Amino acid sequence: MRYPLSIQNLISCFRQFSGVGTRTAERYVFSMLDWDPEKIQKMAEAIGKIPEQLVRCSECGCLLDREICQICTSNSRDTTMLCVLSSPRDLYAIEQTKQFFGLYHVIGGLISPLEGRSPEQLGFISLKNRVIRHGIKEVLIAFDGTTDGDATALYIKKTLEDLPVIISRPAYGMPMGSPLEYIDEGTLACALSGRRKL
Amino acid sequence: MRYPLSIQNLISCFRQFSGVGTRTAERYVFSMLDWDPEKIQKMAEAIGKIPEQLVRCSECGCLLDREICQICTSNSRDTTMLCVLSSPRDLYAIEQTKQFFGLYHVIGGLISPLEGRSPEQLGFISLKNRVIRHGIKEVLIAFDGTTDGDATALYIKKTLEDLPVIISRPAYGMPMGSPLEYIDEGTLACALSGRRKL
Repeated sequence: MRYPLSIQNLISCFRQFSGVGTRTAERYVFSMLDWDPEKIQKMAEAIGKIPEQLVRCSECGCLLDREICQICTSNSRDTTMLCVLSSPRDLYAIEQTKQFFGLYHVIGGLISPLEGRSPEQLGFISLKNRVIRHGIKEVLIAFDGTTDGDATALYIKKTLEDLPVIISRPAYGMPMGSPLEYIDEGTLACALSGRRKL
Repeated sequence: MRYPLSIQNLISCFRQFSGVGTRTAERYVFSMLDWDPEKIQKMAEAIGKIPEQLVRCSECGCLLDREICQICTSNSRDTTMLCVLSSPRDLYAIEQTKQFFGLYHVIGGLISPLEGRSPEQLGFISLKNRVIRHGIKEVLIAFDGTTDGDATALYIKKTLEDLPVIISRPAYGMPMGSPLEYIDEGTLACALSGRRKL
C-alpha cells in the first residue's frame, strides 16, 4: 500500500533539498499532518511568495528585501573595495564579521564543468565593467575553499589582470579554537606557509 | 545585516520540523533560491493542498487518498482483527510487511502528560464501540516501544478488559541483522525472556 498521492508529491518536493532522503522527507511530511491547517497555509504562502518577493539587486546581485539595495545605496560603504561572492547567502556571513565595509558582487555560482556551469554563464564581463566604471581599487574574492572556488578565483584574476586593481582572497589557515590534531593536512600546510610574526 | 523578511519567515517555517535547526533551515531556504519559480510554486501548492486533500477515514482514522478508505472497504481483509496505531503513518510500515491483513484503528497519538494528551482526547470510547460493533476477536496494539507507548497500551487493555477479545502486541527482540554488541540492555532482556525454540 502506497502513501496517498498528495503525500507522495510532497515527499518528492522535500527530497529535492540536498541531504534529505526519503526517510527524512517522510518525517517532515507526516509531522505537518499534525499541524493546524493555518500553519500549513502559512508555510505554503511563505514558499509561494519567494519568487515574487525576492528580487536581486541588478547592480550587485544581492537579495533585496524592499525595492532598494541596502548595500549599493548606503553612503557609509567603501566604494573602492569590491567583494566577489558566489552566492547571495555568503554576504550575510561576511556582514556578520563586521570586518568588511566595501561593496559586493554576487556572480551566482562557481565554474563547474560537472554541474555544467561555464565561465560565460557567470557574467564576469559585468564584473569587469563594474570594476572599471566604479574605479574599484581592490577586489576581494571570497569563494568556498574548494577546487571549483579556486578555479573560479583564478579565472577572475585572469579576467581582471589588465586593470590597475589589487586582487585578494581571505587567508586560509587554522580555524579559531580548533585543536591542531583535528585540522586536515591541506589547511595546516596553508596555515604554516602563511604564518605571521607574533 | 539580517536576511530579507521573506527569507526569515521561511526559515522559521522550516525550523518547526523536529531536528531542523537554524543552519539546516537556512540551507533549505537558500537552496530553494536556485530553483525555478515553477518548482517553488509546485511545492507551495503541494503543501497548501494538504489540509483539503488529506481527509481521514471517519471509521478507522487512516488517511484517504480518494473518497473511500481502501482498508475499510476492502473485501479481502480479516474483519475480526484490529490493529491499533498511534499515527496514520505507522499503517504504511505495517502494510509493507505483508503480514497483517486485518483492519486498523488510528487513535492519533499516545497518552502523554508532558505533551498534554490525556486518555479522554484519544477517543478510546470509539475504539471500544468499534470492537463491540464489529465483533473483533483480536486487538493488536502496535505502538512505539516507549514509555508513552507502553502506558497507552496498558490503558487500552484496561478499557477493553470486560470484552471477550484477545489483546496482543508485536514481539520485542533483537532487530534483524544487528550485531549483539550494539543492542541496548532493555531490548536484549526482552529478546532473552521472549526466546523461542529453534
